[in-house]
Amino acid sequence: MPIVQIHLIEGRTVDQKRALVEKVTAAVCETVNVTPEHVKIILSDMAKHDYAIGGVLKLDAQK
Amino acid sequence: MPIVQIHLIEGRTVDQKRALVEKVTAAVCETVNVTPEHVKIILSDMAKHDYAIGGVLKLDAQK
Amino acid sequence: MPIVQIHLIEGRTVDQKRALVEKVTAAVCETVNVTPEHVKIILSDMAKHDYAIGGVLKLDAQK
Amino acid sequence: MPIVQIHLIEGRTVDQKRALVEKVTAAVCETVNVTPEHVKIILSDMAKHDYAIGGVLKLDAQK
Amino acid sequence: MPIVQIHLIEGRTVDQKRALVEKVTAAVCETVNVTPEHVKIILSDMAKHDYAIGGVLKLDAQK
Amino acid sequence: MPIVQIHLIEGRTVDQKRALVEKVTAAVCETVNVTPEHVKIILSDMAKHDYAIGGVLKLDAQK
Repeated sequence: MPIVQIHLIEGRTVDQKRALVEKVTAAVCETVNVTPEHVKIILSDMAKHDYAIGGVLKLDAQK
Repeated sequence: MPIVQIHLIEGRTVDQKRALVEKVTAAVCETVNVTPEHVKIILSDMAKHDYAIGGVLKLDAQK
Repeated sequence: MPIVQIHLIEGRTVDQKRALVEKVTAAVCETVNVTPEHVKIILSDMAKHDYAIGGVLKLDAQK
Repeated sequence: MPIVQIHLIEGRTVDQKRALVEKVTAAVCETVNVTPEHVKIILSDMAKHDYAIGGVLKLDAQK
Repeated sequence: MPIVQIHLIEGRTVDQKRALVEKVTAAVCETVNVTPEHVKIILSDMAKHDYAIGGVLKLDAQK
Repeated sequence: MPIVQIHLIEGRTVDQKRALVEKVTAAVCETVNVTPEHVKIILSDMAKHDYAIGGVLKLDAQK
């Protein structure tokens, strides 16, 4: 049942995403008593011009 | 008022999306007593490397 | 695979929600070529003081 | 703490997005008593074939 | 068209929420060239045991 | 930066939620190269009448 959505700044490799979903699924199963096949994970990549902290785009925050 | 967000594995045609939003809107109107113009639908396509079940990316699950 | 999230103004009965998830699932299956067991639906009820159109809370819009 | 997600029809320039996150952050800070660095904003662009009102895709609504 | 979802730690008054949706709607209209009636805002209150930074619940972070 | 939203069937204890956010944060840090303070997690509890698989509410699926 747990449905997990993870918003990330774009740029991670498929290998990083493989490890991410594997480890997050294990963490969820271990702590809220479900089995892996019930855990769904959606990854949402964000461009640096689509994320802001403190009113400043990530794109501009790194200049 | 109902706002519907549908996460789908990418690859559906615009025609499939046309039919999807039409039929889902009708289903919502029919069951929770609203009129069509109040129903908004957001479709979110996901790449196969951005969705996982049981800790395995959809990309890898089909190999 | 399709994951559907539906935001609704609170107040619908469980029977209305039963019909809603049944009809929306059928609409999704019929149009994007999946089978029912792959369709997950999350219903999110909203209080009238937690939804706004045009800068006015639903709570106030009905006075 | 406030996390804001804004779904927009695609096509806005980076400058428009700069102004959007700046002004929305100021609006949030001014009204719910937080400081800017605590406000996170995620912008989600939508293609016109991924948004519908009244069962009609935005793509088709403008023909 | 813009749909805004704002996640907040619970506890704000309805008056604060009134001001929040009014000012955020104005900020959106001013920067991405839409009129107020097209801006929808969903407010999602979170309990302090349902939000975490750095692996620590907000509930525990204030002890 | 990673923002994680986890939808769960309601009923978990605060202790389970403590362990969940701790382990998920560690899993994210370990795999996508960020430090804990950048990881935000939102937990969304769902009533059994607000989640459905295959067109059937979780509430009814257990009868």
